[in-house]
Amino acid sequence: MTTLNIEQWGLFETRFTGPAEGNPFLDVTFSAHFTNGDQTLKVNGFYDGSGTYCIRLMPTALGTWNYTTHSNASALNGLTGSFECTAPSAGNHGPVYVHNTFHFAHADGTAYYPFGTTCYAWTHQGDAMEEQTLATLKEASFNKMRMCVFPKDYPWNKNEPPLYAYERDADGNHDFTRFNPAFFQHFEQRVGDLLKLGIEADIIIFHPYDRWGYARMDADTDFRYLSYLIARLAAYRNVWWSLANEYDFMLEYKPMERWDRFFQILMAEDPYNHLRAIHQGHPEDMYDHNKPGVTHVCIQHPQVRQVVQWRKQYGKPIVDDELEYEGNIFYPWGGISAEEEVHRFWLMVLNGGYAGHGETYMHPDDVLWWSKGGVLHGESWKRIAFLRQLVEAAPGGLSPEIDADSGVFPRPVSQWLWNRYAGGFSGDYHLLYTAEYQPRTLMLWLPQDDSYQFELIDTWEMTITPAVVRKLAAPPSYAYPAPGRPEPTYEVDMPGKIRMALRITKR
Amino acid sequence: MTTLNIEQWGLFETRFTGPAEGNPFLDVTFSAHFTNGDQTLKVNGFYDGSGTYCIRLMPTALGTWNYTTHSNASALNGLTGSFECTAPSAGNHGPVYVHNTFHFAHADGTAYYPFGTTCYAWTHQGDAMEEQTLATLKEASFNKMRMCVFPKDYPWNKNEPPLYAYERDADGNHDFTRFNPAFFQHFEQRVGDLLKLGIEADIIIFHPYDRWGYARMDADTDFRYLSYLIARLAAYRNVWWSLANEYDFMLEYKPMERWDRFFQILMAEDPYNHLRAIHQGHPEDMYDHNKPGVTHVCIQHPQVRQVVQWRKQYGKPIVDDELEYEGNIFYPWGGISAEEEVHRFWLMVLNGGYAGHGETYMHPDDVLWWSKGGVLHGESWKRIAFLRQLVEAAPGGLSPEIDADSGVFPRPVSQWLWNRYAGGFSGDYHLLYTAEYQPRTLMLWLPQDDSYQFELIDTWEMTITPAVVRKLAAPPSYAYPAPGRPEPTYEVDMPGKIRMALRITKR
Repeated sequence: MTTLNIEQWGLFETRFTGPAEGNPFLDVTFSAHFTNGDQTLKVNGFYDGSGTYCIRLMPTALGTWNYTTHSNASALNGLTGSFECTAPSAGNHGPVYVHNTFHFAHADGTAYYPFGTTCYAWTHQGDAMEEQTLATLKEASFNKMRMCVFPKDYPWNKNEPPLYAYERDADGNHDFTRFNPAFFQHFEQRVGDLLKLGIEADIIIFHPYDRWGYARMDADTDFRYLSYLIARLAAYRNVWWSLANEYDFMLEYKPMERWDRFFQILMAEDPYNHLRAIHQGHPEDMYDHNKPGVTHVCIQHPQVRQVVQWRKQYGKPIVDDELEYEGNIFYPWGGISAEEEVHRFWLMVLNGGYAGHGETYMHPDDVLWWSKGGVLHGESWKRIAFLRQLVEAAPGGLSPEIDADSGVFPRPVSQWLWNRYAGGFSGDYHLLYTAEYQPRTLMLWLPQDDSYQFELIDTWEMTITPAVVRKLAAPPSYAYPAPGRPEPTYEVDMPGKIRMALRITKR
Repeated sequence: MTTLNIEQWGLFETRFTGPAEGNPFLDVTFSAHFTNGDQTLKVNGFYDGSGTYCIRLMPTALGTWNYTTHSNASALNGLTGSFECTAPSAGNHGPVYVHNTFHFAHADGTAYYPFGTTCYAWTHQGDAMEEQTLATLKEASFNKMRMCVFPKDYPWNKNEPPLYAYERDADGNHDFTRFNPAFFQHFEQRVGDLLKLGIEADIIIFHPYDRWGYARMDADTDFRYLSYLIARLAAYRNVWWSLANEYDFMLEYKPMERWDRFFQILMAEDPYNHLRAIHQGHPEDMYDHNKPGVTHVCIQHPQVRQVVQWRKQYGKPIVDDELEYEGNIFYPWGGISAEEEVHRFWLMVLNGGYAGHGETYMHPDDVLWWSKGGVLHGESWKRIAFLRQLVEAAPGGLSPEIDADSGVFPRPVSQWLWNRYAGGFSGDYHLLYTAEYQPRTLMLWLPQDDSYQFELIDTWEMTITPAVVRKLAAPPSYAYPAPGRPEPTYEVDMPGKIRMALRITKR
């Protein structure tokens, strides 16, 4: 007998035949215990239609995993099996978790810095466009995708989806007690496609843009849907749970208690504790991201400099997934220039947060990347890839140079003058950004007895060139008299251009 | 006997010989009553050196003005005289006062919209550069100048002034009981030069940038100085009193009570009630501009969109005289691009406030416009002049389309979607600004049965072209479904470029 080998954090799946009569989604319970030495994981299975029942596992440890199934259907109860968990293949670093309070890392310790994009309804556009989206993603440098499970009804999003999440009768009425397995098979295929590209799937479970009834299902239907989703998808290592897009636009019919319950269900039923967040619509009146189920803060806000305060307020990673999109539509949330999009990314990331991209250029066929995917038309995505490279060259994620309480920059590189520029550091790696300012010189307060590499970065042209830097014997004439303050030690020639950066690496 | 004719709001001056011995600045009181029919104005005179005493009046009404002097020196007591106040000449509209809560107008009712600039120490640079500054101002379109009485010691401002405000001994020690009349004669000559150019002099009475002792005079010396300044300058109709630049940087040696007293002295001794304001350094922890002596709010703040809140908070005109300067120095307050400077002006003005310009380009001889004057090197001043034209074409000053409480735009032209653009209206004149957004279309909610002129404005290129506008029979496909909301009535083609504006004039 050959042993089945599954790599660590890979996807083990096994299928059984069971009852097809009645309503298996309601009638049949199905789960399994997986054990490996001291470890036991309880995993819910799911009905996949046509009398097929499925159990999936993402093995979290090397070695032999044995399982036993449990069901109220005798054909599915007490079944056993095993597989061997082998070392992960190259590029498989496991699921992403919170690391070092404000940052993320894969399960194997590899740093993960989210540079995501958004194609809310890309899995509902048919294979041709979906394949085009995947081809685009392969060329771009995004490593997270915000995407809705349910199809979307919204301006520029009026097309019917190829598949529906529930069975429908001839009149288009849904039976919300019967999932449509083909819909979910297709969705998880796309999650798997992203996984192959090294892209985390930030799965939006509920959203208000709806004409089919998915947004306004009752509580029990919502809970059943969420459990089904977990049973199907949790074993994909690239899954992040985003409970909602703009949850607050649904409070009228999904009250806060239900959202709390959703977090509880995720915590109880996802054996791997994938990342959990919730996204809101109104920029003020924030969701209480301090709630324990919330692993990181997903934000929609154009005022990205506030990340310094959000870090302090929540003590969790901050991801501003909607700092507004590059585009040219009427709505300001989808109308900023590529330059502004890149600028906000820099401000966000240097201040110790993360950001999400989107693109909303008007299109003759209403194919806007932010919703349908397709191809990128804009200019920001390349610069975001460039920023990603710079951040990945920093060991362990950037922290802001600015102090949230005092507004002062305590780091010696930047000092008290940097209150309108932005600076992020990681150990002795500093990235300073001039934002909307165009200085001809920068003063620095680095210890002169250390040795550094200084590089000038054009954030738009994506060039990195050696900077001209002078050690100062005395402060330059334009320095404020500063009794009691340390004196600047270096002066850097700058090009007098906005949105430049300086990288300082201690040698 | 010929009658002396002085035009209304012109400057009447008469001189007498009096005591020159002792210290006339301390020893001799000198004032006059001027009467014209029912009106009486009490005016303080001042000692101008060499035994000369001077009284000035800005006549506020037509007709015959008679005066009688009062002094503790018999030679100066009980002197009488008269002059005839005639109609103002063309271009003389009288001093500027607050008008219509948030705006300004001259005494004759002519609207005044401040579009000022800043040359703090321009009167201390010697005649050659001062004349150059005036020549520059003649070509530019600024109608207010922020300027310090005292010379300035600051980065890029290390040159000694040609004149000192007080007598000095050979060692450079000031006698703070003896003003230097030549200093003040020169200063008021420059105020008069501005008057000829139609420029209001926003006179900064105290500032902390000092190495001569002017900033740290004691209370009595401060009070005497302020009274002397009022006696000399109040009769210039283009005077505005700005008690300080960055008063809060002087609180250590000029406590709040002293600032309160300054306002009281201005109110008591300026017969014309010229505008009074105070300027602070820290962007947070605002001065209480609700104090009754404060006629309008002078602010230093880069976040210009807050003007909507400031209007609500203070109920007075808001002038952000330092929304940061166009330039390229190390300090962010002097490092924004021309584009950003113009952008902030637009945001400020369309939201019902006013703004001040400054320029801080590094210069081989340290001649930075913001302090010394000279010539303009930047690109924003032309666009500010262009904006001024657009505002002056609006009847009565712009009010923001946005409501400070709700953040909603209640005007039918803009509606609820304009929360990140900016819009200002005056009656049926609307200026809408796309700010950092680059829409291809705008929806409007104007009544369709009226007739309008629609013009597209490029705020940088300074072009005004007819806009392509369609009446809508039904909302465009990208309109949100809006039950209970009025439907958009017009759609405007836009160029997909940031910082565009639309002007709508009802025909």
